[in-house]
Amino acid sequence: MQFERAEYDVRLTKTKERMEARGIDVLITVDPANMCYLTGYDGWSFYVPQCVVLAVDEPEPIWIGRKMDVNAAHVTTYLKQESVIGYPDDYVQSITKHPFDYVADKIAERGWDNRTIGVEMDNYYFTAQSFFSLQYKLPNARFQDLYSLVNWVRSVKSEAEVDYMRQAARIIENVMRTAIDAIEPGVRQCDAVAHIYHAQITGTPEFGGDYTAIVPMLPTGEGTSTPHLTWSDKPFVEGEATILELAGCRRRYHCPQARTMFLGEPPQKLTDATKWVLEGMEAALAAVRPGILCEDVEAAWRECVAKYGLTKDSRIGYSTGLNYPPDWGEHTMSLRPGDRTELEPNMCFHMILGIWMDDWGLEISETFRVTETGAECLANVPRDLVVKA
Amino acid sequence: MQFERAEYDVRLTKTKERMEARGIDVLITVDPANMCYLTGYDGWSFYVPQCVVLAVDEPEPIWIGRKMDVNAAHVTTYLKQESVIGYPDDYVQSITKHPFDYVADKIAERGWDNRTIGVEMDNYYFTAQSFFSLQYKLPNARFQDLYSLVNWVRSVKSEAEVDYMRQAARIIENVMRTAIDAIEPGVRQCDAVAHIYHAQITGTPEFGGDYTAIVPMLPTGEGTSTPHLTWSDKPFVEGEATILELAGCRRRYHCPQARTMFLGEPPQKLTDATKWVLEGMEAALAAVRPGILCEDVEAAWRECVAKYGLTKDSRIGYSTGLNYPPDWGEHTMSLRPGDRTELEPNMCFHMILGIWMDDWGLEISETFRVTETGAECLANVPRDLVVKA
Repeated sequence: MQFERAEYDVRLTKTKERMEARGIDVLITVDPANMCYLTGYDGWSFYVPQCVVLAVDEPEPIWIGRKMDVNAAHVTTYLKQESVIGYPDDYVQSITKHPFDYVADKIAERGWDNRTIGVEMDNYYFTAQSFFSLQYKLPNARFQDLYSLVNWVRSVKSEAEVDYMRQAARIIENVMRTAIDAIEPGVRQCDAVAHIYHAQITGTPEFGGDYTAIVPMLPTGEGTSTPHLTWSDKPFVEGEATILELAGCRRRYHCPQARTMFLGEPPQKLTDATKWVLEGMEAALAAVRPGILCEDVEAAWRECVAKYGLTKDSRIGYSTGLNYPPDWGEHTMSLRPGDRTELEPNMCFHMILGIWMDDWGLEISETFRVTETGAECLANVPRDLVVKA
Repeated sequence: MQFERAEYDVRLTKTKERMEARGIDVLITVDPANMCYLTGYDGWSFYVPQCVVLAVDEPEPIWIGRKMDVNAAHVTTYLKQESVIGYPDDYVQSITKHPFDYVADKIAERGWDNRTIGVEMDNYYFTAQSFFSLQYKLPNARFQDLYSLVNWVRSVKSEAEVDYMRQAARIIENVMRTAIDAIEPGVRQCDAVAHIYHAQITGTPEFGGDYTAIVPMLPTGEGTSTPHLTWSDKPFVEGEATILELAGCRRRYHCPQARTMFLGEPPQKLTDATKWVLEGMEAALAAVRPGILCEDVEAAWRECVAKYGLTKDSRIGYSTGLNYPPDWGEHTMSLRPGDRTELEPNMCFHMILGIWMDDWGLEISETFRVTETGAECLANVPRDLVVKA
């Protein structure tokens, strides 16, 4: 297990407090990060339905998943033998029955079928069919959207979690250096990405790296006008920019970071925009402190870059930490107008300043922790446009 | 684009034929592989809601996604400018509005709101909330489960698709060799996996590799009792087994493969079980030919290994090809009792013979194409237990 047992107890207690405040008796979480957070469970089995079920009046949760993954729960969690339940394999990708039929049966067996059950209505791993199966099999239950309840508990990190994020920061420092070294005119994109992956996974001599919840994204050339393109086997080209949005990951904890490179003499518009973005980032980071609102951080950026005529209509950041594919964001806070969440110490954000124009763009980002007095950027990599002439 | 435009036209025609047969007027697909299959779209943007909408009486589909990803659709698809629609960023992870509210508006604008709309009820990327948003905003529409309609079109590959799978096979041959070379007693698991990733992504001198829909899985020691564990930074240990379930990926087309290694002198139970599994695999592969049923292939395995007292209560394979995380399986056919789908030429399967006991296990697998007369294993790697003494 990645944490002391006492840390899991704190997590369960905080989760139950939020359940009680919302009148939720039984929580079903399918988010792999939430399942890991509450029990330690870690395996690439989330491609089939599985969940952790926590009743507010029971000391421990139960894990329900595919039978072949039961031993993964025994290996990675603190759960008692009887708290790990496997469904038969013929539930997998069947059109006559669904794993959540089985989950519903287990809930009914425990007498929880007339209680208020919280579910993650907008989580990737809670399909429309999953919900229908539960509703059909548990007609007396009252269902309520959890609205990322466990994600919100996760949003304030423990010291042990921050330690893992700092280790992830050491990894991204190596990764970014490796990427910048590897990218040259004529080098195939896939060959540079192979080096990036190697650095992400090998980690440092002290600790190894884990897979990141998002793969390396590196739009290049005209592709820099959009953020989420991956790579091809075409070579990098002299006179073109490349955006690197990468992360280090340590025991599922992420430190994402973006930088922009140019091979050759960068155009004035790119160097100007970089200067403005860097100034805006300084302003936004300087605004961070406990008690300030998420939208205030964005306002500091917005006001700073307005004088240059620069606008950005997408959010400038989101909370991050423990996660699994397809996203390293926590789906709680966004740094954008209207998000009136107050910052607290040990919240962690990825502040990503991406500007995407018709046929060019740039990204510069930092992952920061909210301290007692300000912002601590976790990784230490120069922020400026990387120019290789 | 990865294929000739004519190939996309064939895919659209086949999809519309199935829509007509099922009385579906408008299809909404959120599966990233289906979106790519129908339009060419390729980017890691599926962590926010997005879809391709195809009306049975329109020549081309439309793409709806996040505004910042619109340029990714322009870069990677054949779609006309006006067929690519971006929703504003404040729909992202909001608790007051949902991207599928926006999708519903676009459907209503086209007058499709009183038609029969097919949706992917059990797809990862079609959350319960996505469906509720559509239902609420389109009260006159009739919704129908697509039951993987596009996935079924995908299940029979074109020659161009088979070519990519053969390239993926060349990659997995390199990857498996690299993995076997790297794993030694005392080597950290993460360091071996770093080499595996490097080989996956760098590909061959002729073509590069792409990210696989599932990360390298390599349970080791007691972990071999379950299939979906990833790695740690602990060293491999003399006297222990390691299961390698890896893939090569070329332009999103996969060739998965599993092998089992032992460091030292393997126990008799492992060498015996390997012998039985290899014999069962030969029997199952020999049964493959067009016209035979999925369940018949499994029966050939079952009958062969029964004489050794070996049983396996999970499916022995599934169709594979084009895919995105979290799964390289196509969610159509399974090689198991009750699946009476007839095999056709150019269907491709991952036959995975995994045996997981209390504290040990093994896996051996092949990805094969159904030919006019039998099975063609795409990659050429010795199947036997790999013993490093």
